[in-house]
Amino acid sequence: MSAGFTEHELIETLLRGYRSAKPILGPGDDAGILAVPDGRLVTTVDTITEDQDFRRIWPCGYRTTGYDVGWKSVAQNLSDINAMGARPTGIVTSLSLPADIGLDWVESFAAGVTDSIDQLGAHDCAIIGGDVGRGREISVTTTAFGSLDGGEPVLRSGAKPGDILAVCGTLGLGAAGVDLLDHRSSGRHESEVMGQRISDSSPEPVYSVALAQLRPRPPIGAGPSARMAGARAMLDISDGLIQDAARVAEASGLCIHLQSVACAEPPELTQVAQYLEGDARRWVFTGGEDFALLAAFDPRPGPPPGWRHVGWAETGRGVRIDAQPAQSWLAENLDGLRPGWDPFA
Amino acid sequence: MSAGFTEHELIETLLRGYRSAKPILGPGDDAGILAVPDGRLVTTVDTITEDQDFRRIWPCGYRTTGYDVGWKSVAQNLSDINAMGARPTGIVTSLSLPADIGLDWVESFAAGVTDSIDQLGAHDCAIIGGDVGRGREISVTTTAFGSLDGGEPVLRSGAKPGDILAVCGTLGLGAAGVDLLDHRSSGRHESEVMGQRISDSSPEPVYSVALAQLRPRPPIGAGPSARMAGARAMLDISDGLIQDAARVAEASGLCIHLQSVACAEPPELTQVAQYLEGDARRWVFTGGEDFALLAAFDPRPGPPPGWRHVGWAETGRGVRIDAQPAQSWLAENLDGLRPGWDPFA
Repeated sequence: MSAGFTEHELIETLLRGYRSAKPILGPGDDAGILAVPDGRLVTTVDTITEDQDFRRIWPCGYRTTGYDVGWKSVAQNLSDINAMGARPTGIVTSLSLPADIGLDWVESFAAGVTDSIDQLGAHDCAIIGGDVGRGREISVTTTAFGSLDGGEPVLRSGAKPGDILAVCGTLGLGAAGVDLLDHRSSGRHESEVMGQRISDSSPEPVYSVALAQLRPRPPIGAGPSARMAGARAMLDISDGLIQDAARVAEASGLCIHLQSVACAEPPELTQVAQYLEGDARRWVFTGGEDFALLAAFDPRPGPPPGWRHVGWAETGRGVRIDAQPAQSWLAENLDGLRPGWDPFA
Repeated sequence: MSAGFTEHELIETLLRGYRSAKPILGPGDDAGILAVPDGRLVTTVDTITEDQDFRRIWPCGYRTTGYDVGWKSVAQNLSDINAMGARPTGIVTSLSLPADIGLDWVESFAAGVTDSIDQLGAHDCAIIGGDVGRGREISVTTTAFGSLDGGEPVLRSGAKPGDILAVCGTLGLGAAGVDLLDHRSSGRHESEVMGQRISDSSPEPVYSVALAQLRPRPPIGAGPSARMAGARAMLDISDGLIQDAARVAEASGLCIHLQSVACAEPPELTQVAQYLEGDARRWVFTGGEDFALLAAFDPRPGPPPGWRHVGWAETGRGVRIDAQPAQSWLAENLDGLRPGWDPFA
């Protein structure tokens, strides 16, 4: 695990591993240059930090790879671009590394960045530049860019009473993945949970749930499609369905009703919940990080294919689940869990 | 120094303290939107991290303020935009904070960001958005945006043999500032060096040198002016005059000659060097972080007013000082000091 490399070697390793669409000017000068044909840049920034957003070694024994970190940093930022109804066009990334991280980790990181862009379908997304430096913990900040291609952004504030609320993407898998990774292994092998290994080399069903946390797959492309289909409000669910629905409710000045039956957990979760002796609904309603989209549509014509109807908007305020205020629904069904994630709380 | 605030309170404190030009869409949604009228975005990213780029408490006793950190993070990023010949148009900032940082620090940070933009003259620079999170150390990543207003970027690679090399801005003050701040106080007061205090409340001459490190003042605006005056290559001196001159030499495929007499130290430095028993030329030739510009100009008409002629370009490679290769000049004059800063070396 010895580091012992120069800044030049680190940058060369990154540039060798990065593959993406070409910007007007890529890394190597004081700044890069990106084409912004419609004259408006959509931009967002997000940092992931060791021990806050991931563990280098999880309680189950799984060792987070550079690939996982590179993938996730890109995915969650492209998700914010997607949530505006925009098409990802570029990123810049700043990487802080402790002294015990070697060039092999950096190589893996660059591959994760490249594959995330590619496999999420962001084929126009160029790697424009970055920064590298030292820190006591691994920390990655990605700034992402997007284009509305002449369209209007889909804000959180545009929902109207009577609108249908719909979701595109999975709910709860990312949060269940954290709980799996946080589960101390009882097996003979490192990172063995539920008699299966969480490992790149032997993909077993439980691994797919851990992967939803390690390498989330936001539905990139569904954002612009929803915009073109007339979505009136949209965001990505990064802090939990209830908390993010509350943001749309507040910004739009109305009340959002969710039907719990419509937010049923994916089948993988039932098995994991049984094993961990938890309630899968907790992950679905309060877990973020699947980066699904939540959007409001005029009931006629309603959401495009690929979206699930989960509720509706009406006059009032806050979020209601099965006609109860979300807080009392949580108290009754999930032991009064907090509605979502606040790193400072 | 108790923290005890929510993410919402933290964000509110930042937004209350930020003042800037207005973007198309500011903070509050999944992403912000910036106008890019000429269709090309110039962008750069840089992170500053506690104990790498600054100390929370310097050996002299000075306590770095949120104001200092906010100022510097903006200044060094606007400098990279400036160095492309571009006009700063916006920033996004991601802030990671340990649990012992309070809202008063955050308030001070926001004021530093605001004043840096304002006092450096970046009046078109909008604060578009950001991210906040927890970390074991203070870390700030700013991504900056700029416009070429229809012009062509000034790269590092465009210098031609026969060009005049010129500098705009100070050299060596930022590096001398580090040495002052790193000097253990011998006075009766905290942060007393040379019988003077490094303190906001009693500005004395030595404070101005420390300030060059804490709150650097890159010559924003001189970049676009140099572009319009026909600069053929340009960068900002962030890692040291010799090292950054070597980058222009390499990218342009030629040799850069510097005249040591033309790079004379500012008068403040002579006094500080005497006190610290050092050689002020060390700061001038190998110290970065004044964020002065170094550019190559056709000798006719040469650089615009405000630039100092420090050397010239000719066929060959590398950097020469007073006709010697830079390495042997350093060996002879400055004890073989490394030519500049590499955080990984």
